[in-house]
Amino acid sequence: MSHFEVIASDPHCGARRGVLTTAHGPVQTPAFMPVGTAGTVKGLTPDQIEATGAGIVLANTYHLMLRPGAEVVERVGGLHRFMAWDRPILTDSGGYQVFSLSALTRIDDEGVEFASHVDGAKVHLNAEIATNIQNRLGADVIMCFDECTPFPAEPERLEKAVARTIAWARRCRQAHRRDGQLLFGIVQGGIDLALRSHCAEEIVRIGFDGYAIGGLSVGEGHEHMVRTVEHTAALLPADRPRYLMGVGMPADIVAAVRAGVDMFDCVLPTRNGRNAFAFTRQGPLRLRNSVHIDSTEPIEDGCDCYACRNFTRGAIRHFFNCSEMLGPILLTVHNLRFYQRLMAEIRLQIEQGGFDCWAATALARDDSVR
Amino acid sequence: MSHFEVIASDPHCGARRGVLTTAHGPVQTPAFMPVGTAGTVKGLTPDQIEATGAGIVLANTYHLMLRPGAEVVERVGGLHRFMAWDRPILTDSGGYQVFSLSALTRIDDEGVEFASHVDGAKVHLNAEIATNIQNRLGADVIMCFDECTPFPAEPERLEKAVARTIAWARRCRQAHRRDGQLLFGIVQGGIDLALRSHCAEEIVRIGFDGYAIGGLSVGEGHEHMVRTVEHTAALLPADRPRYLMGVGMPADIVAAVRAGVDMFDCVLPTRNGRNAFAFTRQGPLRLRNSVHIDSTEPIEDGCDCYACRNFTRGAIRHFFNCSEMLGPILLTVHNLRFYQRLMAEIRLQIEQGGFDCWAATALARDDSVR
Repeated sequence: MSHFEVIASDPHCGARRGVLTTAHGPVQTPAFMPVGTAGTVKGLTPDQIEATGAGIVLANTYHLMLRPGAEVVERVGGLHRFMAWDRPILTDSGGYQVFSLSALTRIDDEGVEFASHVDGAKVHLNAEIATNIQNRLGADVIMCFDECTPFPAEPERLEKAVARTIAWARRCRQAHRRDGQLLFGIVQGGIDLALRSHCAEEIVRIGFDGYAIGGLSVGEGHEHMVRTVEHTAALLPADRPRYLMGVGMPADIVAAVRAGVDMFDCVLPTRNGRNAFAFTRQGPLRLRNSVHIDSTEPIEDGCDCYACRNFTRGAIRHFFNCSEMLGPILLTVHNLRFYQRLMAEIRLQIEQGGFDCWAATALARDDSVR
Repeated sequence: MSHFEVIASDPHCGARRGVLTTAHGPVQTPAFMPVGTAGTVKGLTPDQIEATGAGIVLANTYHLMLRPGAEVVERVGGLHRFMAWDRPILTDSGGYQVFSLSALTRIDDEGVEFASHVDGAKVHLNAEIATNIQNRLGADVIMCFDECTPFPAEPERLEKAVARTIAWARRCRQAHRRDGQLLFGIVQGGIDLALRSHCAEEIVRIGFDGYAIGGLSVGEGHEHMVRTVEHTAALLPADRPRYLMGVGMPADIVAAVRAGVDMFDCVLPTRNGRNAFAFTRQGPLRLRNSVHIDSTEPIEDGCDCYACRNFTRGAIRHFFNCSEMLGPILLTVHNLRFYQRLMAEIRLQIEQGGFDCWAATALARDDSVR
């Protein structure tokens, strides 16, 4: 049996309903992964994360390699024990953060050298090191080390990054040493569809357990993003999971599922939650607004999350107003539950064969996915 | 049936095991109340607080009157609904904070005027206002407005404060308007035992549902504190609950229970938890210490709290090191559970008749109560 099984497909678009089997159990796809950067989804305990319906979480190799270090995580028994999360985990490769958070001091075909954002220490990272670190962290799914380009990028810069991403993917495949740990390749190429085709072809030729589309949601906008995802997803093997990295808003997710994407991660529900921004089916809600002072309404009518079942908007606004941790905690719980309810609805619609129609309506009309 | 029932007493000391009946259910005493200053025990959801074993929490009138205001709490359905805490709540009167947090602009026999610590606004507070605010907040137990003196205080200052505390207690009793809400009187007098006797006599003469000992744990030290509590508790009616305000360390609590005290509140378990300090039976633990980097031990061996059941010291140290909210959350959970386990042990020892012996041993030997 393969580690990925498509159990239903929408006849009118690329959407599929699947199950990804990992060393820590199955993941129902399309799936959204909350981001647990430093080994914790900010503000939540694992049982609170589980209660939102999340079946898999993401942790950042870049952050964990700097603090506490892969060897420390390994010594205490691996990432699952460290995070107290007994279900599937995916680690990224650190590539994205090296290019977005660090002062780069060198980049060449071999790898990169950068100054840690924590203490400025010079750190070396390349395909072999990133793979070895992820082997030691012990997530269920690990990612190839890739070169991420900003948007917009010069054509030569993009081409060079794609060439390196392909070469590094080959090296990651070679360096991968841990049984039972799935390794995903990453397709880069900005919004250049020809480059995406070339990169996809080469990455698929190397052969991975799954395929990611990287380098999007970096400022190109919804239309370019969707066009690139539609183009790229169609080039990836139907029998392997497809993961759109770092995306995104609910509308982005619905559009990408339509194009055949199975997995997502994004900081929006958690980061926005900490900033008093709530996702609701009736559109965004800013909980610091004084209009909520004595509101007895829940954040979102009909939501079954712990915050909505127990707290009024008035109380949550007060917690933010007083800088009480409970404000960010409750909105993080709600936003993650909102995303998981969206994914559950998507999965149900695909199973029932009505996804394409539902998605078109949702994208055209519903504030909640915009 | 009275609202307070003593169900067991230790034959060798003043310790008693009781049940305080409130509008939101019974409280098993001796009881420790976690402090939920602004309507939230910092960092925890109500279900996490409940899981520590807490049967009653405290909220601060001073903070809630300034933000969001008693009228807002009242409009959204009262403090229980606001905090999403369906069990007993006690509010203090604001007296202590007026004297410790504010810039006082006037104090006389009528009441006080102070500058809010939030925005500097001039606020007026007196016996009638403090009682009315607490009536509107709707806690199960409310406190008289009293004058708190610093330590040390001049004899005339202390005498004046005691006289005002007595006069204000009489006015609070008169102003109290809410059925089903218990009103406790407060005995002041610093460490002057004669003044404590005088104050206790007058406060008992007015007659309240319970009696508090205020003005301690302000720098007088363990010995003075215990001497004053032993002296004062003995002067209070045996058929009413006794509450030692703002105390304290485990050793203070054990000594005060021995003197016949039934209720406690203190910020130590929560505040220390946020500062990476854990209470354990083996003594204090500072989780920022690098000695814990790759420790696979729980905070405290044998502890049944969520943090100890799921996380290693190494992971918790990492969360503090990265300023992740999960560090303070987990140590708050642990410390509150530590306090509740202490109270459960105290209650059991009294029930079994062995409290005095247990307490003497604990006070003499055990790091965990020091």
